Amino acid sequence: MKEKGLLIVLSGPSGVGKGTVRKEIFSQPDVKFEYSISMTTRAPRTGEVDGVDYFFKSRAEFEQLISEGKLLEHAEFVGNYYGTPVDYVRETLDAGRDIFLEIEVQGARQVREKFPEGLFIFLAPPSLSELHSRIINRGTESDEVIKGRMEKARKEIEMMSLYDYVVENDEVEKACSRIQSIVVAEHCRRERVQHRYKKMLESD
Amino acid sequence: MKEKGLLIVLSGPSGVGKGTVRKEIFSQPDVKFEYSISMTTRAPRTGEVDGVDYFFKSRAEFEQLISEGKLLEHAEFVGNYYGTPVDYVRETLDAGRDIFLEIEVQGARQVREKFPEGLFIFLAPPSLSELHSRIINRGTESDEVIKGRMEKARKEIEMMSLYDYVVENDEVEKACSRIQSIVVAEHCRRERVQHRYKKMLESD
Repeated sequence: MKEKGLLIVLSGPSGVGKGTVRKEIFSQPDVKFEYSISMTTRAPRTGEVDGVDYFFKSRAEFEQLISEGKLLEHAEFVGNYYGTPVDYVRETLDAGRDIFLEIEVQGARQVREKFPEGLFIFLAPPSLSELHSRIINRGTESDEVIKGRMEKARKEIEMMSLYDYVVENDEVEKACSRIQSIVVAEHCRRERVQHRYKKMLESD
Repeated sequence: MKEKGLLIVLSGPSGVGKGTVRKEIFSQPDVKFEYSISMTTRAPRTGEVDGVDYFFKSRAEFEQLISEGKLLEHAEFVGNYYGTPVDYVRETLDAGRDIFLEIEVQGARQVREKFPEGLFIFLAPPSLSELHSRIINRGTESDEVIKGRMEKARKEIEMMSLYDYVVENDEVEKACSRIQSIVVAEHCRRERVQHRYKKMLESD
């Protein structure tokens, strides 16, 4: 039987830099896992490309996919849906390849229920005030939206308990390197590899 | 309260290359942990230096230290004692620095009992036959010694269950890189870091 791939979930508070970290990881030549592109109903930001950054859908299309059970997880966040198409995830894992999801914390909770054996990584801000300034510096949101996000971030940090690892996003390169290390380490976990060696002993 | 360092234990079958891997790790400029030099009653091999590779002791000296409780672990192996002086380990951990032990599997079992929270890494041979040829190529042992070591290796691979991670020593550089990744990942484990973030939330 073929060994299944690893489901890697990167999540964390809004504004912490999940997207930036994910892009940096996938820009590296030695990346060994597939990226699961999310689906969303929010409008593309400047520079975002359909089918690369997200699959951009209408609310009606998105709700149709929910009702058909085609989403591994979905969440409504600041008035928009976000979700992960399930088929690509299952096919990749079954083929023995690792897959990488970058999703909101609500979604991560749903994935944890369905894939408890997944690798859940929480991207954390160096401090809440740092998070605050990052959100302000994005410069596209009203005070009300920022305040709501800060409150949400507090709750999300409290949700850390659901994760296996916490990676501080102090510098993007360092955060990426830690995430790569976590994936390497997980592939060395004894529970995951012991059966290979048992087989080696039997066949010798 | 100061956070304690991580106790990193590298072990594995005789002949698998623990010493080579350990030397390679400590030859790297970015190594972030201390090496706990073992004590032994065996004669130095060519090139081995007292106080660098091992502390070389007589049997009488070694047995004295055992009786005084000065060893974290000790084992008799192919007619010689090997052990880890306990004081340096405790002082390093208490100072918040990681410490690295490279020890025999008998010793690792003793350390696991005393430090269940340690990080136990099993260095595994790519195959038993590969292990066999490595032992032969060392060229310093009789057939009887080799046969005994092979039997021992089988038993040691079965002991893998006591470890957190298994690192295959297919290439020394790769094995070292995996070990470094495991240490980085362990420092990101949620159980280890969550309390820092709880504090951040409280102080904000």
